Amino acid sequence: QKFCSQCGALIIQRIPPDDNRVRDVCDNCGAVHYQNPRNVVGVLPVWQDKILLCRRAIEPRYDKWTLPAGFMELGETTAQGAMRETQEEAGAQIELGPLYTVIDVPHAEQVHFFYLAKVLSDELYPGPESLEAAFFDIEDIPWADLSFRTVVTTLEHYLADAKTGVFPVHHYDIPLPDAR
Amino acid sequence: QKFCSQCGALIIQRIPPDDNRVRDVCDNCGAVHYQNPRNVVGVLPVWQDKILLCRRAIEPRYDKWTLPAGFMELGETTAQGAMRETQEEAGAQIELGPLYTVIDVPHAEQVHFFYLAKVLSDELYPGPESLEAAFFDIEDIPWADLSFRTVVTTLEHYLADAKTGVFPVHHYDIPLPDAR
Ligand SMILES: [Zn+2]
Ligand SMILES: [Zn+2]
Repeated sequence: QKFCSQCGALIIQRIPPDDNRVRDVCDNCGAVHYQNPRNVVGVLPVWQDKILLCRRAIEPRYDKWTLPAGFMELGETTAQGAMRETQEEAGAQIELGPLYTVIDVPHAEQVHFFYLAKVLSDELYPGPESLEAAFFDIEDIPWADLSFRTVVTTLEHYLADAKTGVFPVHHYDIPLPDAR
Repeated sequence: QKFCSQCGALIIQRIPPDDNRVRDVCDNCGAVHYQNPRNVVGVLPVWQDKILLCRRAIEPRYDKWTLPAGFMELGETTAQGAMRETQEEAGAQIELGPLYTVIDVPHAEQVHFFYLAKVLSDELYPGPESLEAAFFDIEDIPWADLSFRTVVTTLEHYLADAKTGVFPVHHYDIPLPDAR
């Protein structure tokens, strides 16, 4: 950012007193503008052994298949955000289950949360952020055309846990693709 | 916010096209300034059956006892942030354990994460955000003088789980104090 959102003056990049990292500082009004990671909240929706995926109508990953998910909004819980995104992207009626994956994605400055969910009807009304929404049998999941590694790994955990029927919370990091 | 951080023009509160909530919009450069909840990351540090708490030197909750915790920074994981905050607020050497509580606090526009941790030495070097740091026996925890309900409930879960020795991830919401 270039201008102070409080007073409109030019921002300076500087370490404030009692701090240890460079911030966007305004010397006109004294404001320090912090930036923080954002949360992405979504759902793994299951309908009679099929999984609901949406084909993205927006960048990044236009045309790729994804679990319904998006940025958490002010004033909602992660669960409420996950349900809202499912409604917006798939128009699906769901019953939300437990929190399932919590995934740190530090290079994207994000934390992703996916809930398990039971789809209550096979009627889908995908919104403007989806080209389509569809149910996939496990063996038909389009692994090569999935949107994000958080989606891939959440589905992988689900397939593994489905063999035991126990679905604990999984917490892990997604390192950079070229990290050694 | 009043001014566009990209161009310095006045912000207008309006629902952008293809959106469904009021945002901070700039009609000069077209920027839409989204706001999102922030993550607070911290640790429940244990040293020989004692729990490490810090007495806050900053508002809110000045003078109250807290688990080491603070806002997650860009580029770090929740685990890295939790370790950083423990270093900054208590100067304690720890070995980080598993993620323990994930707590939605929608009225504060926050999600809190606490990790279990083992303290490796009883030497503490509290930083400027702490008046002091100290170890408490379970029976001496200053319940009436704790900082936040996320701290209270994380400690309550720990005391309950310590009876069985099993410490699963706990995920829950903190509703408004006067919510019915
Ligand atoms: Zn300013
Ligand atoms: Zn602008």
